[in-house]
Amino acid sequence: MKRYLSLTPLSEALEILGRSFTFTPSTERIPVSTASGRVTSSPIFARFSVPGAHLAAMDGIAVLSEETFGAGEQRPVTLREAVRVNTGNLLPPEADSVIMIEDVRIDGDRFTIRRPATPWQHVRPVGEDIGETEMILPSSHRIRPHEIGALSAYGIAEVEVLTVRVGLIPTGSELVPPGEKPGPGQVVESNTVMAAAWLDRMGARCTRYPLTPDDPGLIRSRLGEAVEANDLVIISAGSSAGTRDFTADAIADLGEVLLHGVAMKPGKPVILGQISGKPVIGLPGYPLSAVTVLRELVIPLLSRYGLPREPESTVPAVLSSTLASELGVEEFVFLSLGKIQGRWVAVPHGRGAGVQMSGVRANAYLVIDAGEEGVEAGEEVQAHLTVPVQEAGQALILTGSHDPALDLLADQLAKAGVSLHSAHQGSMGGLIALKKRVCHGAPMHLLADDGTYNTPYLSRHLPGEDLVIFCLAGREQGIISRENLALEDLPKVRFINRQKGSGTRILLDHLLSLRGIPPGSIAGYDRELTTHLAVALAVKTGEVDAGLGVFSAAKAFGLSFVPVAREPYEIVFHADTWEDPRVKALASTVTSPSFREALEALGGYDVSLTGRLRRLP
Amino acid sequence: MKRYLSLTPLSEALEILGRSFTFTPSTERIPVSTASGRVTSSPIFARFSVPGAHLAAMDGIAVLSEETFGAGEQRPVTLREAVRVNTGNLLPPEADSVIMIEDVRIDGDRFTIRRPATPWQHVRPVGEDIGETEMILPSSHRIRPHEIGALSAYGIAEVEVLTVRVGLIPTGSELVPPGEKPGPGQVVESNTVMAAAWLDRMGARCTRYPLTPDDPGLIRSRLGEAVEANDLVIISAGSSAGTRDFTADAIADLGEVLLHGVAMKPGKPVILGQISGKPVIGLPGYPLSAVTVLRELVIPLLSRYGLPREPESTVPAVLSSTLASELGVEEFVFLSLGKIQGRWVAVPHGRGAGVQMSGVRANAYLVIDAGEEGVEAGEEVQAHLTVPVQEAGQALILTGSHDPALDLLADQLAKAGVSLHSAHQGSMGGLIALKKRVCHGAPMHLLADDGTYNTPYLSRHLPGEDLVIFCLAGREQGIISRENLALEDLPKVRFINRQKGSGTRILLDHLLSLRGIPPGSIAGYDRELTTHLAVALAVKTGEVDAGLGVFSAAKAFGLSFVPVAREPYEIVFHADTWEDPRVKALASTVTSPSFREALEALGGYDVSLTGRLRRLP
Repeated sequence: MKRYLSLTPLSEALEILGRSFTFTPSTERIPVSTASGRVTSSPIFARFSVPGAHLAAMDGIAVLSEETFGAGEQRPVTLREAVRVNTGNLLPPEADSVIMIEDVRIDGDRFTIRRPATPWQHVRPVGEDIGETEMILPSSHRIRPHEIGALSAYGIAEVEVLTVRVGLIPTGSELVPPGEKPGPGQVVESNTVMAAAWLDRMGARCTRYPLTPDDPGLIRSRLGEAVEANDLVIISAGSSAGTRDFTADAIADLGEVLLHGVAMKPGKPVILGQISGKPVIGLPGYPLSAVTVLRELVIPLLSRYGLPREPESTVPAVLSSTLASELGVEEFVFLSLGKIQGRWVAVPHGRGAGVQMSGVRANAYLVIDAGEEGVEAGEEVQAHLTVPVQEAGQALILTGSHDPALDLLADQLAKAGVSLHSAHQGSMGGLIALKKRVCHGAPMHLLADDGTYNTPYLSRHLPGEDLVIFCLAGREQGIISRENLALEDLPKVRFINRQKGSGTRILLDHLLSLRGIPPGSIAGYDRELTTHLAVALAVKTGEVDAGLGVFSAAKAFGLSFVPVAREPYEIVFHADTWEDPRVKALASTVTSPSFREALEALGGYDVSLTGRLRRLP
Repeated sequence: MKRYLSLTPLSEALEILGRSFTFTPSTERIPVSTASGRVTSSPIFARFSVPGAHLAAMDGIAVLSEETFGAGEQRPVTLREAVRVNTGNLLPPEADSVIMIEDVRIDGDRFTIRRPATPWQHVRPVGEDIGETEMILPSSHRIRPHEIGALSAYGIAEVEVLTVRVGLIPTGSELVPPGEKPGPGQVVESNTVMAAAWLDRMGARCTRYPLTPDDPGLIRSRLGEAVEANDLVIISAGSSAGTRDFTADAIADLGEVLLHGVAMKPGKPVILGQISGKPVIGLPGYPLSAVTVLRELVIPLLSRYGLPREPESTVPAVLSSTLASELGVEEFVFLSLGKIQGRWVAVPHGRGAGVQMSGVRANAYLVIDAGEEGVEAGEEVQAHLTVPVQEAGQALILTGSHDPALDLLADQLAKAGVSLHSAHQGSMGGLIALKKRVCHGAPMHLLADDGTYNTPYLSRHLPGEDLVIFCLAGREQGIISRENLALEDLPKVRFINRQKGSGTRILLDHLLSLRGIPPGSIAGYDRELTTHLAVALAVKTGEVDAGLGVFSAAKAFGLSFVPVAREPYEIVFHADTWEDPRVKALASTVTSPSFREALEALGGYDVSLTGRLRRLP
């Protein structure tokens, strides 16, 4: 079995790529109307002068200036030779200037003036804008939208622009094409779809080859075909060190493997190779590995051909929780970035390379250098933004308990320009984030021994703090199952639990203790999932028989629901943060009729509690 | 005749637009592969769970964890039930965990392990990435390239996105379609081409209607048709107050003119109207007026429908020269912005609304508030960038004498990532800019009484300064004409001169005085143009008979050239700026063989002087 015996640092991989190729881009002729954002491959010259003849620059009369000399306030001159012109009209050949209409008294075909014209006044001379043969744009210029007008006006119908022809080969017998529902063990081939969308936007011209099963001969012949027709080839998946890893062999057969494995995560199993002097990239199959390799290796490569990268912004941010990292490996971690009381806070997402949603939910990422073993909570990091900084400034970070209604809230807040980022860390996780001020608000439903919710926990963990407790809704918790199971049935079936510190687990423990059911008697009590929907899904697939969760999660999968408790689902804010405009947008969204209606449509919510406000202390 | 009796301030015009319409966008379904940059019109939910079944997260063997319990370093366990799996393989139904291949000794179908497996280790559970029915993206979300992968992977083939249907009606009998060469007094209709390219890039869907001549009935019927089929209509040109101004009447006939004329420049004659509750914008015909109205009025309008604007950066910059501005009018002035010795310097372009090249040559613009009468040279202004700030940082500003070879230099420098901005202010203008440190370098060819070039002027105006004088080339100046005219012929023909302070004019005066020809004897001595090419063009069109200029300008238009002088064309730098990386790029470009070859191809240059360095004092 092959291993990545020596991992090459990312910076060295970039250097190896840089010195292994000559990077001659292709060019293509395209209609000027589609050229915005593209890069000129050669200078563009005006085909004719603009204006092509002397034009009136004002509405008025065209005159020969000599004939107006001597006119004055006390000495009006009446002209017969003058011609009425409007802005943009041709100047008659005998005229050399224009007198504005408001300075002329018109009486039939008699024009009377009281001031002389100076030669060439109010005239746009030939070539004022540009002369025939003059350069409009140099080479290597990224065309801006307003330049489309100039190019058209100067006679340019088509422009020659840079491109890089990229061949994309999806490999893997488990793949089904986009639009098809994958069977068990199959996945939709989406990495080359993403790569094509991304690289085409930079000005590349991507060709996606058909799905190629794990067949060494087929992979080799398709690779040969793609190298022939393109400037750069990306072969997707098949780059991990498993038994079906044919990519490296195919590259070695036709050319040379420059390196296999880069000290980066995700993206470690990437292959960089060369066939007929052209770069060949073996893209790992995990979606976030593919994203990272595209961003960190492929896009820098394309910029060497002259395709400009979108500039990236970074902001310094405080990390909300400690991240360990493998020494010797450069790690990329997706973040939810938000501005909390004037400082940027970065909340890391989970790091599974298969969890593509991390990249969707995040608005930034951070880089942990290979020389670091991690970053401590509270340290300042550089957050690389994946949205405009103005948009990150509109992020609202809620850390704590999960409820399916948060998706609904996210949707309605987005319409108000606020992007909701919710980190599912359980009610206790929310309490801690609130204490550390690394979230705007913390959704929670913590049942105390006295039967009340949240207040005892807040008084204990954030004593004396000014807090605002805002109720999203009351909600029902119950046993989710396929066959009407109740709390009492749990010792007889396969259960799945929520994570420690989640309000739902605390509720379960409370209910079990009330009924005298020992947790140890429940099979699966120790298996944890982090959201209501994940629990319902595990029940739906038959993997387990029951879980505890909210009604809307059961309803989403058509499962049965036996209620066991009613509780308020509240979001807790520091009093100062309650004044934040993003939080105000949340409050007005939650209390809007459309949100209540949508909650009722989801089902299992008590909207009479929606918008209830409490304050502490 | 109509006048703009009352001009509405721009901010008020925006308010009027804001409160006059409801801004309901249209939606369209598009393939997900083309959705990058578009905005979701509704939330998007996963069509199935990913993964859809439990998968191996590592290469190894799938086992039931119970059967591994008790294994240890001293107590190896040999399994017979285990199944060899690779990353991404389906977990067999009887298994609940995966042991990594490097922790297994394989011997035929016998697998020996020395450590127990914990339940669910190295397994990607169903829905780990996303669960069926979970929200992938909320409404109003701008889709990023990497999200194309996620959407495809979760079963989404098409997405519904926001758009605004924009109808674009070009009016004016003087228009010819793009691609056609305009006759005298005609112009290419380019404003709607530009508007379509610009607005489509924001996510609008533009329809360009056919060229519509100045016929009130035709304009009215086309306007009615466009309003019917679109959310917003832009009617191009016909909005100035000339005799052929039918736009306002057509809008008033079918709906209502909200206002005619905004206190902005360029763009003053814009019309804002309403037909059937939809906005109708009368776009002025001058290209830079159209650019300004699109940027300041139309794009903010589109963003009200939910189409996001590209965020704009601004930097504080020192203005190189004084700009007067009309009180009560908000003025937009294009700038060439460059970083000179650590500070941003902004060099304003000419302000003719017909000079579309100003917008092409500029990399920024500034806004002079309606309440200001202008901005003084040396004042700090906010420069709004029209390129990424990194690109503006690569701008190299040369102010002074013009030579057609500067286009060549701009083209070659662009390939090196440096954007050359040359302000044609004549050699004396360059001297002053250099003294004020508002340019990187100043090209000049100032003939002194002692017959030497530049040095006497520099010693007088920048006494004691450390200067580097770098020669671009020697060049020939001569009389440009259609029929071999010489210096002696000038008093007999129509001449055109260069502006005061230009080296070429100083040379002319020197030559005339040597030959005893009084300037007053030359018809056209007082008419000024600012470039060699403009002079050659005036000769070419027959407007004048002769001018003084360089050989390459005569050659560009196939004109005759009678040499009168040889001179060095030098660029002067402060010694510290000579070390600037952009200036170094200029020096290495100029001294490259390809630049010399290109100069020789242009003709009239003495490349033996190219790269000659002198220092002062």
